[in-house]
Amino acid sequence: MVHSEVLTIPARKGIAAYAAKGQTIKCINTHGEQVVDTWAFNRNDLTEFMSMEHSRPHLGHIFPKVGDSLRTNNRRPILTIVEDTSGGIHDMLIAACDRYRYELLGVSGHHDNCTDNLAAGMALIGLKAPETPSPLNLFMNIPVRPDGSISFDPPVSTPGSYISLRAEMDVVIAFSACPQDLLPINGKSCRPTEAHFQIF
Amino acid sequence: MVHSEVLTIPARKGIAAYAAKGQTIKCINTHGEQVVDTWAFNRNDLTEFMSMEHSRPHLGHIFPKVGDSLRTNNRRPILTIVEDTSGGIHDMLIAACDRYRYELLGVSGHHDNCTDNLAAGMALIGLKAPETPSPLNLFMNIPVRPDGSISFDPPVSTPGSYISLRAEMDVVIAFSACPQDLLPINGKSCRPTEAHFQIF
Repeated sequence: MVHSEVLTIPARKGIAAYAAKGQTIKCINTHGEQVVDTWAFNRNDLTEFMSMEHSRPHLGHIFPKVGDSLRTNNRRPILTIVEDTSGGIHDMLIAACDRYRYELLGVSGHHDNCTDNLAAGMALIGLKAPETPSPLNLFMNIPVRPDGSISFDPPVSTPGSYISLRAEMDVVIAFSACPQDLLPINGKSCRPTEAHFQIF
Repeated sequence: MVHSEVLTIPARKGIAAYAAKGQTIKCINTHGEQVVDTWAFNRNDLTEFMSMEHSRPHLGHIFPKVGDSLRTNNRRPILTIVEDTSGGIHDMLIAACDRYRYELLGVSGHHDNCTDNLAAGMALIGLKAPETPSPLNLFMNIPVRPDGSISFDPPVSTPGSYISLRAEMDVVIAFSACPQDLLPINGKSCRPTEAHFQIF
């Protein structure tokens, strides 16, 4: 029960933690409209990690739902969605934001970003991700229309709503509270906030 | 015009080649129903490569069309679709098949797969991909329904139809003629065939 306390994913920043096989990882959208980019790595071999492109063919759909097991790049279940009070809208299609994304949006100089946040969160516990896998973007609302077009919409989640994920192997879980403040992906006010998580 | 001849992507196998900025890479579905997994790497820095998850937010849709520029993981255009006679159905959602995929489908022992084919194709020209990016699956028919469900359907392309891609930087292009023979992704007969390409 090392991590049963409520831990903070600081606004605009990343964090990583260990979770054992069978434990539940609960990610809480504390203020209601915060996207949380999420990664999971096999604790014993970081080159095996949760992969959106490997999960889709096994799920048979492009949006994750309760009961779904996300898979690794070795096609093994790594996280299963066991509960979701957030409205069930999450994204599996969009890369983590990065310095290039913000440069193209007109930002000059440093802007926090989820790609660097993954690296920083892992570094806090002495680890290095072998690459930046395409993340599971919790609470992120990317509608896909019948013609295949997509848009970046505000979350449908509400304050205190959450999603719970069961670890199917010993994992390193990494979160980034997305610092996107130029598009309304974190709500129309474009104000990134903290979020929280528990492991029990 | 080093590569202006018609080159073969052998059935079930992979191949890689150089293309200079501004050159056109034409991938021909010779027998009509062959999926060709496709990757592109910055020739001068293989850690920069075509990325489906980085392309989607900039394209604004999840299926590629003529006029689209696919982007790298640094969000720079790398390949632009300039012509397509194949019916316009290609996939950006599904990982390359791999040994794990075939094990889960009940195959015991070796089965050719696109992940190993990328590595083998790169090795033929003395290179090593830093990872296996999610591929651009040419001619692959993965319909996405309004509820987000997907299926693995036969290609709509016809013999001799093709897609042409303009290189937006000096690239290494890699192809794998997908060896999937358990699902009808390469046609209802489940018989993988060769395909061809030209660079001019």
